[in-house]
Amino acid sequence: MKIALCQMKIVDDKKANIKKAYEMIKEASIQGARLVVLPEMFNCPYSSKYFREYSEKRGTGTYNELSKWALEFGITIVGGSIPEIENDNIYNTSYTFGPEGQCLGAHRKVHLFDIDIPGGIRFMESETLSAGDSYTMIDAPFGRFGVAICYDMRFPEFFRAMALDGAKFVIVPAAFNMTTGPAHWALTARARALDNQLFVALCSPARDEHSDYVAYGYSMVTNPWGEIIGNLEQEEGILVVDMELEQCEEIRKGLPLLKHRRPEIY
Amino acid sequence: MKIALCQMKIVDDKKANIKKAYEMIKEASIQGARLVVLPEMFNCPYSSKYFREYSEKRGTGTYNELSKWALEFGITIVGGSIPEIENDNIYNTSYTFGPEGQCLGAHRKVHLFDIDIPGGIRFMESETLSAGDSYTMIDAPFGRFGVAICYDMRFPEFFRAMALDGAKFVIVPAAFNMTTGPAHWALTARARALDNQLFVALCSPARDEHSDYVAYGYSMVTNPWGEIIGNLEQEEGILVVDMELEQCEEIRKGLPLLKHRRPEIY
Repeated sequence: MKIALCQMKIVDDKKANIKKAYEMIKEASIQGARLVVLPEMFNCPYSSKYFREYSEKRGTGTYNELSKWALEFGITIVGGSIPEIENDNIYNTSYTFGPEGQCLGAHRKVHLFDIDIPGGIRFMESETLSAGDSYTMIDAPFGRFGVAICYDMRFPEFFRAMALDGAKFVIVPAAFNMTTGPAHWALTARARALDNQLFVALCSPARDEHSDYVAYGYSMVTNPWGEIIGNLEQEEGILVVDMELEQCEEIRKGLPLLKHRRPEIY
Repeated sequence: MKIALCQMKIVDDKKANIKKAYEMIKEASIQGARLVVLPEMFNCPYSSKYFREYSEKRGTGTYNELSKWALEFGITIVGGSIPEIENDNIYNTSYTFGPEGQCLGAHRKVHLFDIDIPGGIRFMESETLSAGDSYTMIDAPFGRFGVAICYDMRFPEFFRAMALDGAKFVIVPAAFNMTTGPAHWALTARARALDNQLFVALCSPARDEHSDYVAYGYSMVTNPWGEIIGNLEQEEGILVVDMELEQCEEIRKGLPLLKHRRPEIY
C-alpha cells in the first residue's frame, strides 16, 4: 500500500499553500500513492497569531478543496491539519477524504502543545486553541487507521487506544521544532510503532529557518518492528513508501504484545 | 546518586554465580555506588530447564545473601532476579534490600516472555513460570522507584503506572537476546524514560555465545530526556553512572507530559 508524505514549505499566504498542496498531491498520485498526507497546519504558518485569521468553518474553503482533490485523483487524503472555527473556538483539525470525495473523519488535536523549555522552545497552543475530546479512527478501503496530530504523539496511551481499536497504522501530521525534533522525533515514532506493532507515518512541514516556528522536517515512516523504512531530510519533498500492512499480523503473531497486556494491573 | 549495574557472566553453578555477584557488588560499593543492580536470573542460567532446580523459597538462600551484602556495604541492592518457589509455583522474582539489610520490596515478573519469531528466537516462560500480579514500587532513602523485569519493559502502560505512582526511575533486570536486543533494547529504554520523564536502568547478563540463551548485554542508563548516559557493551563489567534525579522535575516543568495526559479519553 503506497503512502506519500508531502513535506511542503508553508508560507504566510493561504492561497499559495493550497496551490502547493494541490501540486504535491497531484505528483504523489502520479507516483502511485493511494494515501497522501499533508503536514500539520498546512495552509497556515504555525504561529498562534495566525490561527484565528486563517481559521475556517467545517465544510467550507480548504475542506472542500481537499474533498475535490481526493475525488479528482481517486485517492485518500489525510489533509494534514488546518485551523477550524466553531462557536468562536478554534481547533487544530485534520480532515480525511476518501476517493469519492467523502469525508471519512475529522480529528481535532487532543493534547495541546504547551511547552516552555529553558534555553529552548516556548509555545502555548492553549492560549488560542481548544482541544478535541476523542481519538479518531478512519475506515479506508485499504484498512483501518488512526490519526493523531503532533503533540498527541507524546502520549503512549493515546496510540494504545487506537491499536486496540484496530489501527494498522497511525498518520501523524506534525511539526516538531529544532529543540524536540533532533531529540525525540524519530525515537517517539519508532517506539509507538514498535510498542503497538503498527506503522507510523509522520508528515512535517519543510524546515524554514526564517519562520517564527522552525519545523524540524524529517517526515518518515516506521514499521511495526520499530524500523524507519523511509524518511526525508529538511528540504521540501515527497516521500513515497510501500507499507506492507500484513507485517502487523506477522509481527503480532511472533511477539504477541497486545495479547500479553495485563490491563487489570494498570 | 551513583548507581552501578553489574553485567555479570552467569554460569551453570549457583555458588559460583553468588560469589561473582558478591565480588561485583563489593567493587561497585568501593566505586561509590549507593544503589547496585544485578541482572535477571543472576544465580541461574536463563533456560526453562533450570528454573525449578535453582528455585528457592523467599527468605532462604540467595535472599539472605543479598540482605547480608546490603548491610555489609551499607547500600541498596536490587538483586536482579532469581527463580522463587511458592506452593509449587515458580516466579521470576526481584528482591530489593536497603542499607540495614531490610527487604524493601519484591517484584514478580508480571509479563511472561512467550515469543516465537520465525527465523529468530523461541522462548516460552509460561511453560515453567507463573506471573506476578502487580507493579512494584520501592521507597529508598534517595527516592521512590519502580522495578520491572525484562519483558515487563515492553508495556508502556506498566511504566506509566509507576510514573504516576511517583517513580523517579525504574530499574530493569533484563536479558534481551540477539534478535530483540539489537532491534529493541535501547529504543525501548529510551522511549520509556522519555515518555515518563524518569531514568531507566537496564541490567543484563554479559553475553555468552555458548549458553542456551545468548543475552545481548549492553546494560545502560537513560535519562528523562531519552538520552543514554552510560552503557556497557557485551563483556562482563560494572557500569557506574551518576543519576541527577532532580532532572525529572526540571524536565517535567518545561514539558509537562504527565500533566497533559487526557485519561478520560484513553
